[in-house]
Amino acid sequence: MADANDGDEHFSLVLFSGTDDKLTSASILVAGAAALGKRVDILLQYWALEAFQKDRVEKDHGLAPEAGAEGASLLFRAGERKGAHHWSETLRQAKDLGEVRIHACAHSMELFRLEQDDLDPLVDDVSGVASFMADAEGQMVFV
Amino acid sequence: MADANDGDEHFSLVLFSGTDDKLTSASILVAGAAALGKRVDILLQYWALEAFQKDRVEKDHGLAPEAGAEGASLLFRAGERKGAHHWSETLRQAKDLGEVRIHACAHSMELFRLEQDDLDPLVDDVSGVASFMADAEGQMVFV
Amino acid sequence: MADANDGDEHFSLVLFSGTDDKLTSASILVAGAAALGKRVDILLQYWALEAFQKDRVEKDHGLAPEAGAEGASLLFRAGERKGAHHWSETLRQAKDLGEVRIHACAHSMELFRLEQDDLDPLVDDVSGVASFMADAEGQMVFV
Repeated sequence: MADANDGDEHFSLVLFSGTDDKLTSASILVAGAAALGKRVDILLQYWALEAFQKDRVEKDHGLAPEAGAEGASLLFRAGERKGAHHWSETLRQAKDLGEVRIHACAHSMELFRLEQDDLDPLVDDVSGVASFMADAEGQMVFV
Repeated sequence: MADANDGDEHFSLVLFSGTDDKLTSASILVAGAAALGKRVDILLQYWALEAFQKDRVEKDHGLAPEAGAEGASLLFRAGERKGAHHWSETLRQAKDLGEVRIHACAHSMELFRLEQDDLDPLVDDVSGVASFMADAEGQMVFV
Repeated sequence: MADANDGDEHFSLVLFSGTDDKLTSASILVAGAAALGKRVDILLQYWALEAFQKDRVEKDHGLAPEAGAEGASLLFRAGERKGAHHWSETLRQAKDLGEVRIHACAHSMELFRLEQDDLDPLVDDVSGVASFMADAEGQMVFV
């Protein structure tokens, strides 16, 4: 049952972007929130939803356009050297660790003509923006 | 009069981006917040402000660069097929439905040398960041 | 000591993007929050971190790709005409004015192989996402 301070324990993420740098950044924020014991809800829209399609998660989703060639090569070498976790693995661990739920936005599903069966098992369900917003207490971040 | 829980009833959106995909996503979040009875304030900056210029609202504002040709063609076909609402129409409905106010950022107005008369009637007034921030309680999202 | 309303007095900013338009927008939000007496914490990730490298702060960091040639020329002329503040100067003033702390994300520091010595003195320290999230109360914005 929600009480006055319930918002402190909830973290809502609207995940719109589908480039690997933003997905990595978002997944680390989610893992941080889950480690703090916060309940996390993620709504996948547009290009983020596209990135969560089955068999596409592990593929190269590029970087934000501002990365440029220099940035891309830095990250590539860094990833090789450090064996950094893929964002999907970070999200999987966050789901094991805490209460993290990933919803595909019903509106974006229609736009991209997707069924839940087309999505990676990381995605829990298809959900409307209205119910996501109704449930969102406390911090909401758009990535 | 503001009380301790007033933040739960307010949704603040800094709208920076001016591509049709982000504007659509933002407008749906706003409609969701308004439907929940939340008071919504939107601050238009930079490319979002540019998109709200009179006679430009209905034009093609492109997509986030990450969309690519495949994404663009998907959305185009989807829009044709589904007769999806334009984001300006979603915002208009949200304003009819609830307490939604759209402010043009004074700083961006100066940068782009615009007067309020240059903007679509959806925009209520020109406002400084300071007053927007002073009024912002509860969730704040940057798109 | 934190009390139930402490979140109202804290503003957390995850600064991911490193283009001059987004950095300017973010710096103005920060200045607004500081002027209201809010405590501000900024976490620099990826391209924002790159922009805060010593001797790079004042350089041209470009604009969001959606700006286009027309937008870029507008802003350039406006900046010349109005003598607008650089975002680093706005942040410097916000730090003088209030309690504003800028943290370099430890994960991004590793990715880009940076040491704190490589960064502009505006940056206070290197910090993990976990401690940033643990400290974040109230509004959190991702730019």
